[in-house]
Amino acid sequence: MEASKKDLTETARQVRVELGDRSYDIVIGRSVLGSLGTRFTSLFPGSRAVIITDCTVAGFHLEAAEASLRAQGIIPSVVVMEPGEKTKSYKGLIEACDGVLDTRLERGDLVVALGGGVIGDLAGFVAGIIRRGMRFIQVPTTLLAQVDSSVGGKTGINSAHGKNLIGLFNQPHLVLADTAVLDTLTPRDFRAGYAEVAKYGLINQPDFFEWLETNWQGIFDGGPEREEAIARSCQAKADVVAADEKEANQRALLNLGHTFGHALEGMAEYDSERIVHGEGVAIGMVLAHEFSAQLGLCDPAITDRVVAHLQTVGLPTHIGAIPGQLPKVDLLMDYIAQDKKVSRGALTFILTRGLGQSFVEKDVDPSVLRAFLEEKLN
Amino acid sequence: MEASKKDLTETARQVRVELGDRSYDIVIGRSVLGSLGTRFTSLFPGSRAVIITDCTVAGFHLEAAEASLRAQGIIPSVVVMEPGEKTKSYKGLIEACDGVLDTRLERGDLVVALGGGVIGDLAGFVAGIIRRGMRFIQVPTTLLAQVDSSVGGKTGINSAHGKNLIGLFNQPHLVLADTAVLDTLTPRDFRAGYAEVAKYGLINQPDFFEWLETNWQGIFDGGPEREEAIARSCQAKADVVAADEKEANQRALLNLGHTFGHALEGMAEYDSERIVHGEGVAIGMVLAHEFSAQLGLCDPAITDRVVAHLQTVGLPTHIGAIPGQLPKVDLLMDYIAQDKKVSRGALTFILTRGLGQSFVEKDVDPSVLRAFLEEKLN
Repeated sequence: MEASKKDLTETARQVRVELGDRSYDIVIGRSVLGSLGTRFTSLFPGSRAVIITDCTVAGFHLEAAEASLRAQGIIPSVVVMEPGEKTKSYKGLIEACDGVLDTRLERGDLVVALGGGVIGDLAGFVAGIIRRGMRFIQVPTTLLAQVDSSVGGKTGINSAHGKNLIGLFNQPHLVLADTAVLDTLTPRDFRAGYAEVAKYGLINQPDFFEWLETNWQGIFDGGPEREEAIARSCQAKADVVAADEKEANQRALLNLGHTFGHALEGMAEYDSERIVHGEGVAIGMVLAHEFSAQLGLCDPAITDRVVAHLQTVGLPTHIGAIPGQLPKVDLLMDYIAQDKKVSRGALTFILTRGLGQSFVEKDVDPSVLRAFLEEKLN
Repeated sequence: MEASKKDLTETARQVRVELGDRSYDIVIGRSVLGSLGTRFTSLFPGSRAVIITDCTVAGFHLEAAEASLRAQGIIPSVVVMEPGEKTKSYKGLIEACDGVLDTRLERGDLVVALGGGVIGDLAGFVAGIIRRGMRFIQVPTTLLAQVDSSVGGKTGINSAHGKNLIGLFNQPHLVLADTAVLDTLTPRDFRAGYAEVAKYGLINQPDFFEWLETNWQGIFDGGPEREEAIARSCQAKADVVAADEKEANQRALLNLGHTFGHALEGMAEYDSERIVHGEGVAIGMVLAHEFSAQLGLCDPAITDRVVAHLQTVGLPTHIGAIPGQLPKVDLLMDYIAQDKKVSRGALTFILTRGLGQSFVEKDVDPSVLRAFLEEKLN
């Protein structure tokens, strides 16, 4: 067993995020969590560690993470947060900061973010501001975190004003994506992460989207397609981030479906009973295609194809699929206007000209968008 | 009057902080606050502004700052905080973040920090984390902020664990140091700032310290010596920051007196009735000289000279001068151990070999320090 684990680790895929002296590797493979300790000590000899996680993830994977560090003589401290989007709040931030400060770790020591997108975003932010910057490692335990939030250095929390409005660009020093831990996800959470995988195809890789239409079952079942899809997704994200770390321009493509998605999450008050991030992205991507079609930019048949695939894997594809009351258009427009992707009044959206032909449109007329949304809400 | 103001602005001194594409100017002179608007629009045409200040400073200088911006067509939003060190807290951070988010300003807009060290540290931190980074201008209104905290990009808040433990290295885009606004300071606050001026002499410029011994009265009285002293202090800080922005090494020299000082502030619970930062630094610098003398590094006569000058300007020079109960040595050692200037157990202190001959000592034995402090507390 130990030997086969080692073999799997050694055959792990590696994707490099090229950012000069802040470059780092994403290591992807079954059971790579077991290599956390050796990778840690080889990258940061003599450093200590604090693991930030949530109680759900802790139940599944904390023991393995701790054991791997302990085997290398590192006794990690642990800060355990409540699970769920509401932890990405001022309250969660204070709790995590105080938890790390309690450990008396120093600037050269490391924060290990063990969890999904919420933990990764929070812990990456906390690492960036404790003692004006500790180092950190991402160990993403959800599909969404592995293909999206753990890569690229966007960290932060939400506020009453909207999602991710407070945070930092703060790059990790290593990302360790163990594809076996995804077996512990609920089907709903796995599907939500899959929305971000499909996104890379829809941004600018139509061949990848086609490959997903054929191979999605293997990804869900844990076949070799899973590593392939995660590595391709990470590579796509790494390429964009390396070219435009702070979203001056092309990085905005990664927000395909996100401005709509964030608004839907906001109107649902980030209540994961009603909607989780990946579901918002799925609906948002469909809306982006529909809106593009309505503007005459994109063949409506493309929207049908996108809807068909997302429905096949079980993702929601329209606003009405969100349980509870439909939002008012004013509320949605309000969230959209407060989204970071706004520049001097004009709205920036990712639109598309066809399958995998997305582009950044910085001059969307709010009244046209409002009319489109009103129609969708009726 | 308007003409003479303009002349004074035009003859303002300028110190450049060289940090590649994050370089910026410190502009120093009487009435330079009146040039805020023109400098703002020439540096950031089309951007909007939010001023973060406290109610004390607002009473004196907000009108002038707003008027200068309005004259250029910029209608600034304003966030007014409570004055005092306790604003550098989680609570203050949340209040300021929400205040800025309420304004709906965007990533390219600017935060203007109008106030002393507390406001500068808080607003610089807030600017760094709203929408993952807005730009910001420092308009320091205390001597301490003008010569120290507004320059160099250290921003942050305190926690129950200690001072400045949560924050960022975040460089401003401009520092506007109006020496006339210092006329509104209480004598105590002016003196506290002067401790940081004297510090630059004691770090590595014995000639500057000698010049201060002769010329201090002109600085306090608002003569041309004031601009000279502030410009020399800013230049000294700019040189150190340019060489070592993130305190890998020589920047630590700027902490002369600060590890002791922070511990004294901590034990007084940041109660400004008992001690303010500059007073802590004054006592801390004396302690650093005394400790150096006790270690046989420095002639005790140097300590006497430092004490004499600090006493001449009215600064406290020993722990017993702090009103209230003397701290227990355990508590001080605890704060010292939690200070950021700690590396793997050994304590880092700035010690000195003579007048203006400070150096970074990374291997101070805690037990030797404890014995020294016990003696001081008896």
